[in-house]
Amino acid sequence: MDIGSAIRNKIDHKTKPLGALGFLESIALQIGIIQQTESPQLTEPHIVVFAADHGIAGEGVSAYPPEVTRQMVLNFLNGGAAINVFCQQNDIRLKIVDAGILTDIDFHPDLIVSKARHGSGNMLKERAMTEDEMNFSLSSGAEIVRDIAKASCNIIGFGEMGIGNTSSASLLMAHIYQLPVEDCIGKGTGVNEQQFMHKVDTLKKVSALYPQTEDIYEIIQRFGGLEITQMTGAMLEAKRQNMVILIDGFIATAAIACALQIDSAILDNCIFCHQSEEKAHGHLLKLLGQRPLLQLNMRLGEGTGCAVAYPVIQSAVNFLNNMASFESANVSNKKS
Amino acid sequence: MDIGSAIRNKIDHKTKPLGALGFLESIALQIGIIQQTESPQLTEPHIVVFAADHGIAGEGVSAYPPEVTRQMVLNFLNGGAAINVFCQQNDIRLKIVDAGILTDIDFHPDLIVSKARHGSGNMLKERAMTEDEMNFSLSSGAEIVRDIAKASCNIIGFGEMGIGNTSSASLLMAHIYQLPVEDCIGKGTGVNEQQFMHKVDTLKKVSALYPQTEDIYEIIQRFGGLEITQMTGAMLEAKRQNMVILIDGFIATAAIACALQIDSAILDNCIFCHQSEEKAHGHLLKLLGQRPLLQLNMRLGEGTGCAVAYPVIQSAVNFLNNMASFESANVSNKKS
Repeated sequence: MDIGSAIRNKIDHKTKPLGALGFLESIALQIGIIQQTESPQLTEPHIVVFAADHGIAGEGVSAYPPEVTRQMVLNFLNGGAAINVFCQQNDIRLKIVDAGILTDIDFHPDLIVSKARHGSGNMLKERAMTEDEMNFSLSSGAEIVRDIAKASCNIIGFGEMGIGNTSSASLLMAHIYQLPVEDCIGKGTGVNEQQFMHKVDTLKKVSALYPQTEDIYEIIQRFGGLEITQMTGAMLEAKRQNMVILIDGFIATAAIACALQIDSAILDNCIFCHQSEEKAHGHLLKLLGQRPLLQLNMRLGEGTGCAVAYPVIQSAVNFLNNMASFESANVSNKKS
Repeated sequence: MDIGSAIRNKIDHKTKPLGALGFLESIALQIGIIQQTESPQLTEPHIVVFAADHGIAGEGVSAYPPEVTRQMVLNFLNGGAAINVFCQQNDIRLKIVDAGILTDIDFHPDLIVSKARHGSGNMLKERAMTEDEMNFSLSSGAEIVRDIAKASCNIIGFGEMGIGNTSSASLLMAHIYQLPVEDCIGKGTGVNEQQFMHKVDTLKKVSALYPQTEDIYEIIQRFGGLEITQMTGAMLEAKRQNMVILIDGFIATAAIACALQIDSAILDNCIFCHQSEEKAHGHLLKLLGQRPLLQLNMRLGEGTGCAVAYPVIQSAVNFLNNMASFESANVSNKKS
C-alpha cells in the first residue's frame, strides 16, 4: 500500500463516520504525504514577514502613505501588530525581514536586513528591479528559509508588509495568467472609489508598457515587489526543504503563482489558509485550483491568515495521531 | 458613548486598515458587548456533550446501529474521540452527560448521569417524551450549566451524540418553521441513497401524525431528542448566566432554534462555529439569519465545530486586548 492509501485507511478507521471530518481529513492526508508518514508532526512553526517599499506607491495607489511600511515594521518589532498577537497565541515564531524598505531601521535583534535596494522602481517609469536585484532577492529569501530549517522547523508561513504591494501582485497575476489587469485589482488597504479608479488607470498604464511574455523572471523584474520576490525565493526553498508551506492572502498567493512557474510541484506542499476580502484573491485561488481553509473576510496581510489558521491545521494532525480507531475503542463500524 | 460604540472605536484605532480583520472584528465586538467591556476575557471554556438514544433509530433511519451511542460515550470517557482530541489541544474542559442512553453505563467520574428515561419514544408510534420528561430534561441541562458557571466559565459549547438524532432535529426544524419535513433532512452519519429515501418516508409519516402548532413545548415533546432537550435547557441557562454560547452543527442549531422560541434574545450570546455538511444546516442557519465562522465540511457533531473554532474566537479577543493602536505605535493613520 502506498503511503497515501495507508493514511486514508488510518483516517477511515477513526471513530467517526467516513469523511465526517471533512477538510481536516484532506489536510491530514496532505501533511502525511508530504512527510511520508502515517504519524506526521508539526515542529517549530515559523512565519516570516518580508517588508519592502514600492516605487508605485508614490503614484497614490494606496490608502496609506509609503512611510507606513517602515512604521508597521517597527510595530512588528515592538510586538504590537495583529501578526504578533496571533503568533504569540499559537506559539509560532515570527521573523521580520527588511527586504527593501526605503529608510533603514536601526539595528534590532529580531530584524533580518537583507535588501537588494531601498524600494523598488516606479513601474510607470522603470522596471521594479534589475536582474541582479531579482537574483539577490530570490537567493536571500531562500537563505532565510535554509536558516530556519536548521531550527527543525517543518511548517512555515509567509507574510508581507509593503504599502503599494497589491498593485505589484495585481500586475504579476495579470501577466502570468495573461489577463486584463483591471480583472486583477482590488481595494488593497481600503482605497475609496475615486482612488480605486486612479489605481486601475495607473496599473493599466503600467501594464501597457510591456508586451506579454511567458518568462517568469522577466515578469518578476518588471512588476515584482522586493518583498514578493524574496517570498517567492523563500517558498521555493521551503519546497526543497519539504516543509508544509502556509499561504496567506492575495500577495502571498501572487508569490506562489510566481514560484509555481519555477517549480511545478510546489502546490503539493501548500495549504491556502484564508481567502482574503481583496477581490482578485478569490479569482487567483480559482486559477490555482485551490480552496482556502478559512474565509473570515480579513484583508490585512502580515501572514495573519496563516497564524489564525494554524490551530485548525494542528487539529487535522492531532486527530490523525490521537483519535482511537473503531477497533481500539470497541465501537461498531458495522452499518445497520 | 455606549459600550458597542466604545469597542468599535477601540477596534478602529488598532494598527490595521479599517475593517481589515473582518469576521474577527464582529466576534470581538459581540463578546465585548456580551461582557459589557472593551477588554473581554474568555475564562474556563467548557464543552458539554449530551448523549441519548432515539426510539426512531429502530426504524433504520441511521447508517449506524443504536448501540453506537453508548459505545461512543465510552470512547469519550476513554479520551479517544475527535472531541477529546480537539478539547485537549485547545484547553477546553469536556463534560459528558448521559441524557437518555438506552443501556446504563457503569460509574465513571467524568460522566454526569441525568436522564428522564432510557431512550426517547419511537415517534412513529408515540411522542418522544412526556411533559414531565421534557421538564426534567430542560431543568437538568440548566442545572449542569449552573454548576459549570460556578467554575468561572464564561464561554460554553454544546455537543451531542445520539444515533438517530438528525431525524429528531429535522422534525423540530420542520415544525418550528412550518416547512415540509423533506426540506429539512440530510444524510446524517452517511446513509446511502436507498436508506435516505427510507429516512425521508419515515419522517414524512411521523410529521403527518401531528397538526401544526406554535407551542414549542408541544413540539419538543413530540420530536425532541432527550439530548437535544437538555441542550435547549442548557443554552437557556447559559444565556441567563450571560455566557458566550458556542453553537456546533445541525443538532445544536435545532436546539438553539427551540431555545429561541423561549428566549427571543438568546442569539445575542451565540457564535455559530461551523456550517455542517448536513444539508439542512445551511438552510436552518439562513432561517436564523446567522453566518457560520468556519466551513470545513465536517458533519460529526460531538461539539467538534465549537472545539476547532475556539482558537479563532480566542484570536478575536486577543487582537482587541493586545494589538497596539495607531497612537501607541506611532503609525500614521492619515490617508495619503
